[in-house]
Amino acid sequence: MGTALAAALLAAGHRVTVWNRTARKADGLVEKGARRATSPAEAIGASDIVIVCILDYADVAPLLSDDGADAALKGRVVVNVTNGSPAEARELAERVAGLGADYLDGGIMAVPDIIGQPQAVVLYSGAKDAFEAHREVLDAFAGSVYLGADPGLAPLNDLALLSGMYGMFGGFLHAAGLVRSAGGNVTAFTTELLIPWLRVMADSQLPAMAAQVDSGDYGATGSHLAMQVSHDAIGDVSRAQGVSTDLFAPLWELMKRRVADGHGAESVGGVVELVHPREPRA
Amino acid sequence: MGTALAAALLAAGHRVTVWNRTARKADGLVEKGARRATSPAEAIGASDIVIVCILDYADVAPLLSDDGADAALKGRVVVNVTNGSPAEARELAERVAGLGADYLDGGIMAVPDIIGQPQAVVLYSGAKDAFEAHREVLDAFAGSVYLGADPGLAPLNDLALLSGMYGMFGGFLHAAGLVRSAGGNVTAFTTELLIPWLRVMADSQLPAMAAQVDSGDYGATGSHLAMQVSHDAIGDVSRAQGVSTDLFAPLWELMKRRVADGHGAESVGGVVELVHPREPRA
Ligand SMILES: NC(=O)c1ccc[n+]([C@@H]2O[C@H](COP(=O)([O-])OP(=O)(O)OC[C@H]3O[C@@H](n4cnc5c(N)ncnc54)[C@H](OP(=O)(O)O)[C@@H]3O)[C@@H](O)[C@H]2O)c1
Ligand SMILES: NC(=O)c1ccc[n+]([C@@H]2O[C@H](COP(=O)([O-])OP(=O)(O)OC[C@H]3O[C@@H](n4cnc5c(N)ncnc54)[C@H](OP(=O)(O)O)[C@@H]3O)[C@@H](O)[C@H]2O)c1
Repeated sequence: MGTALAAALLAAGHRVTVWNRTARKADGLVEKGARRATSPAEAIGASDIVIVCILDYADVAPLLSDDGADAALKGRVVVNVTNGSPAEARELAERVAGLGADYLDGGIMAVPDIIGQPQAVVLYSGAKDAFEAHREVLDAFAGSVYLGADPGLAPLNDLALLSGMYGMFGGFLHAAGLVRSAGGNVTAFTTELLIPWLRVMADSQLPAMAAQVDSGDYGATGSHLAMQVSHDAIGDVSRAQGVSTDLFAPLWELMKRRVADGHGAESVGGVVELVHPREPRA
Repeated sequence: MGTALAAALLAAGHRVTVWNRTARKADGLVEKGARRATSPAEAIGASDIVIVCILDYADVAPLLSDDGADAALKGRVVVNVTNGSPAEARELAERVAGLGADYLDGGIMAVPDIIGQPQAVVLYSGAKDAFEAHREVLDAFAGSVYLGADPGLAPLNDLALLSGMYGMFGGFLHAAGLVRSAGGNVTAFTTELLIPWLRVMADSQLPAMAAQVDSGDYGATGSHLAMQVSHDAIGDVSRAQGVSTDLFAPLWELMKRRVADGHGAESVGGVVELVHPREPRA
């Protein structure tokens, strides 16, 4: 990922200094015009903005304290796009601020191949002034989205997007199991039916459900939960076809629990109360 | 739903005869130009193509045997869009064929409001000649998709699409819980980040996963399962934020089971083997 980011900066015409623990892995970037630093401190000292992308968040702080690195940080902006947790981001932001540098945490919503392409997105949180001052540099990577001053917001929203993606993958895997169990072609099903259907459902249902989560008013606009859980057609047919309901059952159980709790007239969006209750439980 | 279907036929300029158990509910259609039948038999006798849409599949066969109805069916096409199971569809198709009529089973992928609009889809399976002969009539409802001669295919693919939708909803609900736990605005997250992200992930990942399910070759093209399960970032951060992992955990567990079974170098598509195994288990 670090290679893709540096290459995007070079392609956008920026002056780039690179450091990688295993030096030869930066050879390609040097051929494309990057300067090679021989230490983290030298790389940090070379530019106003320092992009950090290594495997583990826990290794970032030691790297920024490497021989002379911490002194070199003063007055610069650190943009750390290594994946970590909100708590780790807040801790590192404080440490970097203590060294006199600004801190931005980044969550890359892209694989290396699409860095620099229009569908790539990078989420940022932390020092707003630093984001605005360097936005043009960051835009070389992807569409840049600033989420707020809390440095934990980028990793949190990153993980929220990933959990949404895994939900969609889980739904795909169940659907694929059903189609396969009937001897169907999963590719045709997916490209001709499922993807267009998910698109229509996302556009027509998710914004309304999101508004319900924000307002706490889950009144059904279309079909209500009691009607939806009145008959477990997906479960029954899955079992008849020898398809496991492991991926479908948990949402089904939560929907039934909502109905049992007296929310049968509401919509499926209210299930969020069983995922993260609005008011802390007594 | 029956009202919306009849209204779409009228809007497309077709001659329509309607029957509803509670007669007054058809008043609006009669005002729009529909003829009212006083019995199922009369409604069946009025047209070459008979559209059936009631609440429960189990009630369709009795309705088609109502006083004189079965005799009236001979030579006609029955298109039943009442939701049922593949087994129910096969049984009804045989019964209808026994009465000398053609049978099509239909799965409506739309709410009544969008019947007749471009994003609506109806899946059909059963008598192919009947589908082709009456396709123009059916196209008044929605985009018509013919899936094959087995009448069970429409309900099966209908339920597969619904299971895909519920997966996406489950992912949304987990993501919404995470965003809300950090005090974020779920509407902004959903419209600005999640929906575009799901679109990119659906288009870029699902066709490749589908091809893997069809071929049984789950070799990773991007990130492999062992890397994905090496660190439960979503679970850890969810727990730290007080967000239930009920909706995320099942896929996570299946991914870990795939790795434990020796498929760590493969992609997430291989999880389908734990949902519906390619070869029946010994
Ligand atoms: N790849 C993706 O699709 C993707 C997408 C979004 C986010 N990310 C995030 O981007 C980050 C990097 O991922 P990647 O895919 O580039 O991983 P990778 O291909 O395994 O590269 C890891 C990099 O980290 C360096 N590194 C590891 N430990 C180090 C240490 N202790 N000190 C100094 N350098 C160290 C490695 O240096 P050596 O060359 O010396 O080993 C290498 O340059 C991760 O946090 C990942 O979660 C990746
Ligand atoms: N609504 C949707 O969004 C939607 C989407 C896709 C598929 N569907 C499917 O469409 C079908 C109808 O759903 P709906 O939303 O229209 O339900 P609905 O609004 O409750 O209407 C049910 C209809 O079925 C009739 N009916 C029920 N039992 C009957 C019986 N034993 N004999 C004769 N008529 C009977 C009712 O007649 P009365 O007026 O006399 O009660 C009414 O016309 C269901 O299979 C549903 O799964 C609906």
